[in-house]
Amino acid sequence: LENAALDAQKIARISESFSRQSLFATLGAQLSHVSPGEARIRFPRNEAFLQQHGYLHGGVSTALVDSACGYAALTLAPPDCAMLTIEFKANFLRPASGQWFEACGKVVKPGRTVMFCSGEVRQLDEDEKLIVTMSATMIVQTQ
Amino acid sequence: LENAALDAQKIARISESFSRQSLFATLGAQLSHVSPGEARIRFPRNEAFLQQHGYLHGGVSTALVDSACGYAALTLAPPDCAMLTIEFKANFLRPASGQWFEACGKVVKPGRTVMFCSGEVRQLDEDEKLIVTMSATMIVQTQ
Amino acid sequence: LENAALDAQKIARISESFSRQSLFATLGAQLSHVSPGEARIRFPRNEAFLQQHGYLHGGVSTALVDSACGYAALTLAPPDCAMLTIEFKANFLRPASGQWFEACGKVVKPGRTVMFCSGEVRQLDEDEKLIVTMSATMIVQTQ
Amino acid sequence: LENAALDAQKIARISESFSRQSLFATLGAQLSHVSPGEARIRFPRNEAFLQQHGYLHGGVSTALVDSACGYAALTLAPPDCAMLTIEFKANFLRPASGQWFEACGKVVKPGRTVMFCSGEVRQLDEDEKLIVTMSATMIVQTQ
Repeated sequence: LENAALDAQKIARISESFSRQSLFATLGAQLSHVSPGEARIRFPRNEAFLQQHGYLHGGVSTALVDSACGYAALTLAPPDCAMLTIEFKANFLRPASGQWFEACGKVVKPGRTVMFCSGEVRQLDEDEKLIVTMSATMIVQTQ
Repeated sequence: LENAALDAQKIARISESFSRQSLFATLGAQLSHVSPGEARIRFPRNEAFLQQHGYLHGGVSTALVDSACGYAALTLAPPDCAMLTIEFKANFLRPASGQWFEACGKVVKPGRTVMFCSGEVRQLDEDEKLIVTMSATMIVQTQ
Repeated sequence: LENAALDAQKIARISESFSRQSLFATLGAQLSHVSPGEARIRFPRNEAFLQQHGYLHGGVSTALVDSACGYAALTLAPPDCAMLTIEFKANFLRPASGQWFEACGKVVKPGRTVMFCSGEVRQLDEDEKLIVTMSATMIVQTQ
Repeated sequence: LENAALDAQKIARISESFSRQSLFATLGAQLSHVSPGEARIRFPRNEAFLQQHGYLHGGVSTALVDSACGYAALTLAPPDCAMLTIEFKANFLRPASGQWFEACGKVVKPGRTVMFCSGEVRQLDEDEKLIVTMSATMIVQTQ
């Protein structure tokens, strides 16, 4: 897990949250990068998660880029906040035909209540082709 | 599988497409209704697909309501067409705290090239609470 | 201005807010209905607001259905709150070829911080054809 | 009107289409840049197009960035095609408090049938603050 200029407490919190998501363990997804305002998750093609044409299901890509956006937002929030996705829009540019993928989430505009994020999923093989783009809105929940 | 006024060939095609999606078998999802312009899929909470607070991951609900929209669109398309989701937007109204869910997809406006769909996911327990709404755009692919 | 079961203070506030939007006066738009969780605005085709094919510009329809959603949300908010659109998605089903239109906004799920709304624009001539659908997210601002 | 590497016929077609949109003349909007895959439109604050707090109405910004996306897509389409927006999503990051704005549209992924675009609106005063982001889907219509 690379990271830059992010305090240890936040990294620990994000890693711990990640490890609690059973979907990620089921998929074999790994948090690959966290830095202020950005997070990335790598994940493989998985035979148990395909759609009808044999590609990785679009729902898998959107779940992971949504989560990458959420962790990106968490890096800029006060400690002890939770992040709640209230909506996202995903565009499907190409089928997920590769073997390995990386979802990247970034904060476009941070805020005390609302975090605007954008994300994308690329295939790591095949020239890092862009397969999904996302815009997501997160609400900061003070606990 | 209930259905109304839909020819046997289309039902067979949709069922066959459904059965090829390994994600649905992995989840335990079932096609519960198909009629002209509408499709529904039931699915259970699954311990392998949770997010960090122990609820069913939002990506699961969106994958299934996207697919319900796609099958709804297929019911109104010529035989031998494929349906491709080019984008969707999902709103997350409540966490998926229940045990059973139903995703429903409907065609808002059919077309030869573009199908506009809307969808929702409800919890089957707890008063059929609405947890996700979606608007999705499908492209009809002639083969 | 029809209305049902909405207190006089809220109606006055919404009407006053409406009258302060110079865009609406410029367009000739009128608030046609306000009731708890719903608002409607009527507006005519206007020669000064057309797109390149001679239809009313899509931006006009989206501006008005966004505002209808905002007023719908205001009906369910505490007095003295302001409503801020943080995002919307609009689908364009048909060109706005008619002479009169009605934008309708409804609250899908109210909340203390977030209001989820859906909206649509219909042509009042030509069988009330649906031309635009919208899903919008509003943030409640306490003043 | 700046431009780079775009043939004269396409520039003429886009300029001509722009000049037919009465909304743009009404607003005082100008096409400020066209190059392959990108278009920009400048527009001023206009007293006739304000919302209730005295800022330029969000519908104006979305109309113009939608059009910028459409012209960006036109630069990559065959001659004699028309471009139809089927949906867009807009995020509202800040109120449009400035005097001059620029909407920029870019093609994220071109296609024969579908063009995926992204856009943004910046205030030209006040540090070029980003006020709106958009993702839009265009359908190429062969005439």
